[in-house]
Amino acid sequence: MKEKLRYGIVGSGAVGSYYGAKLAHAGCDVHFLMRSDLEAVRRNGLAIRSKDGDFHLPRVNAHGSPEEMGPCDAVLIALKTTANEALPALIPPLLSADTALVTLQNGLGNEEFLASRFGARRVMGGLCFVCLNRTAPGVVEHLGHGTLSIGEFKGPPQDRTLRLVTDLQRAGIEAKAVQSLITERWRKLVWNIPFNGLGIAAGANVAQVLKDEHLQAAARALMAEVVDAAAKLGYAIRPDFIDDQIERSWPMGEYRSSSQIDYEAGREVEVEAIWGEPLRQARTAGAETPRLEFLYALLRRLGGRGVHNSNRNG
Amino acid sequence: MKEKLRYGIVGSGAVGSYYGAKLAHAGCDVHFLMRSDLEAVRRNGLAIRSKDGDFHLPRVNAHGSPEEMGPCDAVLIALKTTANEALPALIPPLLSADTALVTLQNGLGNEEFLASRFGARRVMGGLCFVCLNRTAPGVVEHLGHGTLSIGEFKGPPQDRTLRLVTDLQRAGIEAKAVQSLITERWRKLVWNIPFNGLGIAAGANVAQVLKDEHLQAAARALMAEVVDAAAKLGYAIRPDFIDDQIERSWPMGEYRSSSQIDYEAGREVEVEAIWGEPLRQARTAGAETPRLEFLYALLRRLGGRGVHNSNRNG
Repeated sequence: MKEKLRYGIVGSGAVGSYYGAKLAHAGCDVHFLMRSDLEAVRRNGLAIRSKDGDFHLPRVNAHGSPEEMGPCDAVLIALKTTANEALPALIPPLLSADTALVTLQNGLGNEEFLASRFGARRVMGGLCFVCLNRTAPGVVEHLGHGTLSIGEFKGPPQDRTLRLVTDLQRAGIEAKAVQSLITERWRKLVWNIPFNGLGIAAGANVAQVLKDEHLQAAARALMAEVVDAAAKLGYAIRPDFIDDQIERSWPMGEYRSSSQIDYEAGREVEVEAIWGEPLRQARTAGAETPRLEFLYALLRRLGGRGVHNSNRNG
Repeated sequence: MKEKLRYGIVGSGAVGSYYGAKLAHAGCDVHFLMRSDLEAVRRNGLAIRSKDGDFHLPRVNAHGSPEEMGPCDAVLIALKTTANEALPALIPPLLSADTALVTLQNGLGNEEFLASRFGARRVMGGLCFVCLNRTAPGVVEHLGHGTLSIGEFKGPPQDRTLRLVTDLQRAGIEAKAVQSLITERWRKLVWNIPFNGLGIAAGANVAQVLKDEHLQAAARALMAEVVDAAAKLGYAIRPDFIDDQIERSWPMGEYRSSSQIDYEAGREVEVEAIWGEPLRQARTAGAETPRLEFLYALLRRLGGRGVHNSNRNG
């Protein structure tokens, strides 16, 4: 890999803008592919408001098309998974022989999607544990956390994995390389499947789920289904991870997941990545997941394209 | 029993008003206990609009208190189950030595509630299969069906059961006596638990549940849990009853259950009678009901007192 990597950011919502801005602020060569925010960012740059310190980048490399952006060494993909069908057209102009495609997207199936189109060798993934809010075009509020776990689609970390982690760490991000990206994705789903799901289906934020004995029991039972499915697929998660996740959720208070926020704002929810694909994989492995199956049926209707919460009352 | 029974109707919403008006229209001695509709009904009487023929009762026996109403031979109870705590004060003035208390309410637990306060000997129950809408005070629209299945709380039909059925039939109601009231209640729950539940949790009417393969599968899986729980409790329901219920639901079209209508109007839903009490009984019998348990947790929050759908988006 070159001395200085050329980074491309595809999907400049909160996640893409935040991590891209952190890298650029640290002196990395970062290029943003933008659509709706392009004019605002060309005019005003990117602003990050964070408890770790605000900063403003008055000039960033904001591009309106992948052709204008050109080949990059590492492309961080932060589109919503519901927009994945745009990737086959967006990615090719960004590719050189060794370009790494790093999906920072939610849930399962994104690495496979990229691998099927661009080859498994290029594909990496990252799990973001971060609370962000895009409050205006080019303005992101960082509410807490920020860990980024980076791994290879297939196999343990390589030199390029560690190289990315190093750049991210130098940019002030808590980054680490993970031995098994897919195991980590399942571990994250142990939290997202119940809490994002109940955020929509029960209209309950984290504290409301935890304080209601029936909803907390439902969350725990969902977690147990996910842990069991992961185990049957060969991704072992210790059973005390469930208690641990519940304990770690209490300090989150009234936190609403991005899925709940999307739902309540009438935006499409990432139903397939977070619930549909895990359910299908669980079935393949012969796991019993009655609650996940039931929740998925509800969320397909509630959170799907064009069937938003306004339809609930009509 | 006397030649001509004195009927009391407690709870003069759509169900109480409809069946009471049918009896009164046929010449029975019917007394309505009313609160919110009292003045309107004293002024304008009761009007039934029905595909079977409209009719209007210009003068009905509408009472503002149970003391004014006095002892009856049969009291038809059609309050919402969420108002059951009012019954211990309302019922005693209506009792003579042989008064029968006939609960027409939804779900499980109502016979037990009446038996615990007024003695099991008095208690009967009825299952209404009817589509009604109270469109204004004293005005009920009858949209379809109307079967009323009457049974004893404990044991097979008695003389009084058949006597009531005869009066109802003379009033043009498709009434029948059932051998086991509680078995019939479980059979009705096989439909109500999924369709009323998904009406709220998925915002889906009957046709929308049937047409969505995942929601229909969820409905069938819930039905199987209810059939299994009933069997373990000693109430046998044939397994092909599930296919039968699905088939019978198609002609209902865009029908919304009373629970869905209550939920969407911001009114309290009968969560305990329709989901909570069946779940508790299923657990007692050692039945596995993961979907019912999950649905109940959602509905407690969504449909409970003071937590209505407006809270979903706030």
